[in-house]
Amino acid sequence: MESGTRAVRHFELELEELKHKLLEMSSLVEAAVQRSVAAVTQKDRSAAEQVYQDEIRINQIQLEIDEAAINLLATQQPVAADLRLVVVALKINTDLERMGDLSVHIAERAISLLKEPVIRPMVDIKHMSTLVESMVRKSLDAFIHYDAELARSVMAADHAVDHLRDATYHELVSFMEHDAHNIPQALDLMGVTRSLERIADHTTNIAEDILFLIKGVDVRQQSEGRR
Amino acid sequence: MESGTRAVRHFELELEELKHKLLEMSSLVEAAVQRSVAAVTQKDRSAAEQVYQDEIRINQIQLEIDEAAINLLATQQPVAADLRLVVVALKINTDLERMGDLSVHIAERAISLLKEPVIRPMVDIKHMSTLVESMVRKSLDAFIHYDAELARSVMAADHAVDHLRDATYHELVSFMEHDAHNIPQALDLMGVTRSLERIADHTTNIAEDILFLIKGVDVRQQSEGRR
Repeated sequence: MESGTRAVRHFELELEELKHKLLEMSSLVEAAVQRSVAAVTQKDRSAAEQVYQDEIRINQIQLEIDEAAINLLATQQPVAADLRLVVVALKINTDLERMGDLSVHIAERAISLLKEPVIRPMVDIKHMSTLVESMVRKSLDAFIHYDAELARSVMAADHAVDHLRDATYHELVSFMEHDAHNIPQALDLMGVTRSLERIADHTTNIAEDILFLIKGVDVRQQSEGRR
Repeated sequence: MESGTRAVRHFELELEELKHKLLEMSSLVEAAVQRSVAAVTQKDRSAAEQVYQDEIRINQIQLEIDEAAINLLATQQPVAADLRLVVVALKINTDLERMGDLSVHIAERAISLLKEPVIRPMVDIKHMSTLVESMVRKSLDAFIHYDAELARSVMAADHAVDHLRDATYHELVSFMEHDAHNIPQALDLMGVTRSLERIADHTTNIAEDILFLIKGVDVRQQSEGRR
């Protein structure tokens, strides 16, 4: 902040622009995850179709973010924590795009489930999706606020998601074994829980990246301390 | 090449070192994929256990590659095609690590399948895995040789994998509907085909990155032409 040259200001602006785009993408992905889950639990076709629309914008902004990050590396040649931020932006971008893909998978399952009468309450799926949605939100908040504690809480929640997934899986297997007519619906629901689990995995990737980023900040602080 | 300064040579060496590490990782991942498939198709427990060992080294080298790429960005501040190569290295690194994870998923299914008598020949899985293994090899060769045609052939093969996956899926559903005792085995086999399909997806990500890289080379050639 002390070296108020035009070059530094320009760099800060580009970095803010990159963060801004990532936050826009985060909001889109968060909305897509929520809508895909609503499509399943509320049998809402229009929510599922909205997810397909979201995906188009998510793919577009992913390219914009990659390009902005690469331009920033090429023209500003950041070092230390700023460099880590750009590299982490590239990584988070990939995770967010995959989360968008997984929302589409869930939306596809939701549309397939519309054909089936609900022969099983979706309590576990609702519970699991609430947990995963909160992980999505926390991982993005941790990024906005450079919050290591919040990032660690995301990583801790991943075990709970895995347990819920396993429990649901075994329940759905019994459900299939009980009556072969349940097989298509059970497979769709397994697909939903698997996609939710993978979305949770991506939030833990993001949380790990944030810890890496904060570690980078610490390294810079140490070198500032030496000055 | 004409500006043979020490700095340029040092940069070239670091870039070669990064490529070398990526190739080591590629070989490890290719071996892990092959071993995990062998564990399923040949009911080979030791192959499955070897995949767990491979995964440890893959995770370790992933960190080394990320660190090498970030150091290279920080100290050498590459531009144009060199910058693209480093960014693509970071992306390919992520894809390769996920492919390693997926090999572990397949190995886990292989171990679960050991408990089951083989009540269905694994012709489709062998066919699918042969195709996916060739995509893995081609995507890495395309990277080594900057071969856009080879990269495009990987992307074209992805449809065949999706079709095989869908065909196998429907066959496995009938198999489950026919006899509930088949359900656990069919679910394991579905897990294997799904992981193979996802490995194929990662090879197409790598192929796309290679095309991006080659496009970068073209851009540099254009700017050289302007000089």
